[in-house]
Amino acid sequence: MNRKSLKIPFLICFFLITQCLIPAFGQVSDSAVVRNIYSAALLNDAAYNNLKYLCKNIGGRIAGSPESLKAVEWGKRILEEIGLDNVYLQETKVRNWIRGEKETGRIYSGKSGNKDIWVSALGTSVGTGINGIKAKVVEVKSLDTLRILGETNISGKIVFFNRPTDQRNINTGSAYGGAADQRVRGAIEASKFGAVGVIIRSLSTAFDEYPHTGIMRYADTIKKIPAFSTGTSNADLLSRMIKDDSNIELFLKSECKENDEVKSYNVVAEIMGTEFPEEIILIGGHLDAWDTCEGAHDDGTGVIHCYEVLRLFKQLGIKPRHTIRAVFFMDEEIAQRGARTYAETVKAKNEKHIAAIESDAGGFLPLGFSCEISDDKLMKMQQWKSLLQPYGIFFIEKGWSGVDISFLKEQDFPLMELVTNSQRYFDYHHSPADVFETVNRRELQLGSASIASLVYLIDKYGL
Amino acid sequence: MNRKSLKIPFLICFFLITQCLIPAFGQVSDSAVVRNIYSAALLNDAAYNNLKYLCKNIGGRIAGSPESLKAVEWGKRILEEIGLDNVYLQETKVRNWIRGEKETGRIYSGKSGNKDIWVSALGTSVGTGINGIKAKVVEVKSLDTLRILGETNISGKIVFFNRPTDQRNINTGSAYGGAADQRVRGAIEASKFGAVGVIIRSLSTAFDEYPHTGIMRYADTIKKIPAFSTGTSNADLLSRMIKDDSNIELFLKSECKENDEVKSYNVVAEIMGTEFPEEIILIGGHLDAWDTCEGAHDDGTGVIHCYEVLRLFKQLGIKPRHTIRAVFFMDEEIAQRGARTYAETVKAKNEKHIAAIESDAGGFLPLGFSCEISDDKLMKMQQWKSLLQPYGIFFIEKGWSGVDISFLKEQDFPLMELVTNSQRYFDYHHSPADVFETVNRRELQLGSASIASLVYLIDKYGL
Repeated sequence: MNRKSLKIPFLICFFLITQCLIPAFGQVSDSAVVRNIYSAALLNDAAYNNLKYLCKNIGGRIAGSPESLKAVEWGKRILEEIGLDNVYLQETKVRNWIRGEKETGRIYSGKSGNKDIWVSALGTSVGTGINGIKAKVVEVKSLDTLRILGETNISGKIVFFNRPTDQRNINTGSAYGGAADQRVRGAIEASKFGAVGVIIRSLSTAFDEYPHTGIMRYADTIKKIPAFSTGTSNADLLSRMIKDDSNIELFLKSECKENDEVKSYNVVAEIMGTEFPEEIILIGGHLDAWDTCEGAHDDGTGVIHCYEVLRLFKQLGIKPRHTIRAVFFMDEEIAQRGARTYAETVKAKNEKHIAAIESDAGGFLPLGFSCEISDDKLMKMQQWKSLLQPYGIFFIEKGWSGVDISFLKEQDFPLMELVTNSQRYFDYHHSPADVFETVNRRELQLGSASIASLVYLIDKYGL
Repeated sequence: MNRKSLKIPFLICFFLITQCLIPAFGQVSDSAVVRNIYSAALLNDAAYNNLKYLCKNIGGRIAGSPESLKAVEWGKRILEEIGLDNVYLQETKVRNWIRGEKETGRIYSGKSGNKDIWVSALGTSVGTGINGIKAKVVEVKSLDTLRILGETNISGKIVFFNRPTDQRNINTGSAYGGAADQRVRGAIEASKFGAVGVIIRSLSTAFDEYPHTGIMRYADTIKKIPAFSTGTSNADLLSRMIKDDSNIELFLKSECKENDEVKSYNVVAEIMGTEFPEEIILIGGHLDAWDTCEGAHDDGTGVIHCYEVLRLFKQLGIKPRHTIRAVFFMDEEIAQRGARTYAETVKAKNEKHIAAIESDAGGFLPLGFSCEISDDKLMKMQQWKSLLQPYGIFFIEKGWSGVDISFLKEQDFPLMELVTNSQRYFDYHHSPADVFETVNRRELQLGSASIASLVYLIDKYGL
């Protein structure tokens, strides 16, 4: 070093010192707040106990069902108990699909004997009629194969879609996405060639009997045929039995029907901002859940995360500068009618959001945040990483945000999702295995604290 | 930029280009190998099925027990099935502590009535004698409190250590460590003041009835008194009942005894190095597990990780330059006699290790590696982070390595431990809740693949 370099003008010195000191002081104070948020979350069981009530006393709550309205009441009640500035219901219309009595599935084989298998109608499927359907089965691994097989091989049969999720994928969400076309479009494509029904291998990462349901679609101009799923172990069984005996038949029965649309609600709760009450930081999860499960990870834990963020702000006396708004969305699973209504209302009222964070990836160990965001705003957020890393938030990166907040996209503010350990999620997702017992208390609490900490930082420094 | 800077001599150019290219080519090839390792692990169920056998068909297997010898046979068999270069047993002596019949715990209260509580003798505790012990209870939160209370308040009583693990600690291992003095030294300190027995609040992060056992110590000059644990919910119950009725008595009975030392074994398996067969990369877990559980996460998953690393190397045809040696250590829980024997043998044979990796933190989602390592070697390892990060290995940092490999410390080579998600571990640890069902197949497979990938990199680039 030569002496010259020390001759820095006083003003530059002052600038450098203050630039170093201000973030340093801010940092200490922020790290203390973040520590307090995590401690408060880890020492309080309200969130965990409320989730238990939702799962065990209300259970499955698909939009339109009586249970979904009980969940609305429950959501409003637990939010009111915190003592927030506003708690209200936001009306929306939802479809009213009803599963009816438990479905029947039976494989008939002259060679190997008959075998009952556990099946579940896919969401919004038509029913089979009271006599069910009984037909030969044609197994395929992709929608494309149908075109190759053609009407000759498909007409009058049940198409069995048996392409597994790709276990090699580290991100199980991608593995799920890679197999979901069978569930979503299987009935449309099979019906084009005269199939009488479809059954899919559950979009599951586990090897067990649980059938996983989920949304499927029909096309207006194509005959609606009933659609089912069966667990991965029963899909393997069916596949083996087909290989042993090409004449096997499958009997399927479901009583699904769809009634007229009904009224339902998003539950909305707010802590008003002290400086910028008109600017909203939105946190959201969805209140509805498939009727065959308790909806613990999908998405009981998401609404609980949002509830807990508000509870933590109240408990710790954090008075946000911007309005913190939690929305328990209705109808994520079928048609996102709650999310659409929310987005329309925001537009109609010309409300301003500065960020939205969705939690719909399960209540597992939080690992990071995935953001739909501009480069400069991402860079700003990444400066907060050192504050969150001690608590296991390893990344803040660009990526997918969430289904319900996706309807806000045209308004051009950052959308984010809490990313949690995805390894177990699709073992349970949309199936009777998605129960309260699979949620670990501490992992749930860490998720709430991670979102609360990020909301605190966005609120303090803007975005 | 001025033109001058382009005038770099040819040799420097050549050097820069090759330096960039070689790591670049190496990188592509390494990332393909790592990808293959993870894919092979995620597509093969051998590890998961072998763990199931260990948990369900052998179960608890504390050193010295017949079950521990069955586990030795099992370990040798599954390793032999892979077709390795060497599989052998390494003899060691172990203590032979026997729990005897299931323990009894009962609270007697004239005011609130009597209440049975689930208790477990701590590991190596003496028994109570066939009549059990019945005495008044004095509740404390720390060993220090005993000195304040003194003999007057303690003599003839059962001391109840009831300091919980600190839920605020993100690292549950640290929370456990912060409460473990009660279990390890409680009986010594209470006996000094004339206590007739001790019972501790389980060192658990969960709120339930499962009693967690674990090693405790006696001092030669201090009377040995029987020691128990009870689940956190029963500890809360006992505490409440003491507050309601200071005259309550506690009855405790155990039949523990200790026989003469017996023979046992480490199981050792090797793939010999092609270039440096005398240089060993050691991977280890422990085969023994407390008798009250299945020893799934502690440490069935650890030995399975090691087994799977060797199996993956064989399946993928990776021929290591150094010898890869897996050791299933015996007796980690009581006296680490297997680990001591291993370390003594290494010293006697003057064997050279270049690294040791222990897996004893459960079969949960792998997150990183914690290393006892020099700065320069850590820096070398951190260059591999980008290869492992796509698979969720977020850190390679200095920290604790492992109990069994700690006996190799004086030989000055890097010791490491696979760090997994710690949030659920102490819900199960040393208790009947540590069962196969709590292990997620994919999380287990990711752990094996993470260690195998690190072993591959250490073997290829040295350390």
